[in-house]
Amino acid sequence: MSYLGLGVSPGTVPVYHGTKLKVLDRRVRITELVLRCVSLGLGVVAIVLVVTDSQVKEFFSFQKKAKFTDMKALVFLVVANGLTVGYSLIQGLRCVVSMVRGNVLFSKPLAWLIFSGDQVMAYVTVAAVAAALQSGVLGRTGQAELQWMKVCNMYGKFCNQMGEGIASAFVVSLSMVVLSCISAFSLFRLYGTNKNKYAGW
Amino acid sequence: MSYLGLGVSPGTVPVYHGTKLKVLDRRVRITELVLRCVSLGLGVVAIVLVVTDSQVKEFFSFQKKAKFTDMKALVFLVVANGLTVGYSLIQGLRCVVSMVRGNVLFSKPLAWLIFSGDQVMAYVTVAAVAAALQSGVLGRTGQAELQWMKVCNMYGKFCNQMGEGIASAFVVSLSMVVLSCISAFSLFRLYGTNKNKYAGW
Repeated sequence: MSYLGLGVSPGTVPVYHGTKLKVLDRRVRITELVLRCVSLGLGVVAIVLVVTDSQVKEFFSFQKKAKFTDMKALVFLVVANGLTVGYSLIQGLRCVVSMVRGNVLFSKPLAWLIFSGDQVMAYVTVAAVAAALQSGVLGRTGQAELQWMKVCNMYGKFCNQMGEGIASAFVVSLSMVVLSCISAFSLFRLYGTNKNKYAGW
Repeated sequence: MSYLGLGVSPGTVPVYHGTKLKVLDRRVRITELVLRCVSLGLGVVAIVLVVTDSQVKEFFSFQKKAKFTDMKALVFLVVANGLTVGYSLIQGLRCVVSMVRGNVLFSKPLAWLIFSGDQVMAYVTVAAVAAALQSGVLGRTGQAELQWMKVCNMYGKFCNQMGEGIASAFVVSLSMVVLSCISAFSLFRLYGTNKNKYAGW
């Protein structure tokens, strides 16, 4: 492309030779790939833990079953993690292809797309974890003033597995937060001030 | 400072003359100031609405009072908005001083500080709104499977005011999300690629 001064595809440039930057970029890309894999793996773990979470309790003559769909926040958590898993898979593949080819992200539209996606996923996963945690705390401690009773003293196994699912989802959300910072870095450094006339930079 | 090639204070440089960038920077700074004011103002509104939210209901011979402390998520919402108000006040003042002086943010440590603060506040406010919304939905619809009863058919005024408080806090969290993008832009453009050897940029 002419604006790069080289005959390469838009959005990427070939391997470059600024050693310090090469090292930084390599580290950033490896960190990104690791975090995409963490999001993917722990997202699946969170979904499996929550979806398979159920417990049957017998009360004299009848049975009662606690399941994840009893808490809307857990359904939201599963949906959010499902989206994250799909998104991380696509982004992870993009990372691998980019690393194999030795390309550097240079297309603003693509960088904006990745940045926007990461931002949305980071906030969605954080919101889902917060809502699920709120439900979990309610389940464990109840809210006597509103006659919302504890359920964890009846459904101990159910609550423990829910806790493990939320913990996995929490790590996923942390990964997404760091990834959103990385994609912000990848995008906004394309708007570097140093090509301009700021006080001699 | 020698690294700027000018005798100015660290972190800022005087008014510059790149017209296009001047306009962009001006817009960014005005947007930032407006959003800081929105966060400050609506943060206060959210706190007032939630803290003053209570309703007394008479049940035959006794009275029952619903108040915001009955829902832990609302207490978290108040704390998160309290932090946001204080933070927005400090950042708003910094914006005003920087605009009056006509300075441009150029210090990486300061940009990192603002970026980190904005990121934390954005995620905290989003988490607080998500948790409060989860409580609000529970209050409105209940969760029959867990014997968590609806409270909004008894405490209608309480729930409406809570909804207004959460709506204000939601706008605050949206402002913080946009502000965190702005501060990411202000920080990472300092790491511009164009001073390097990337394919002739």
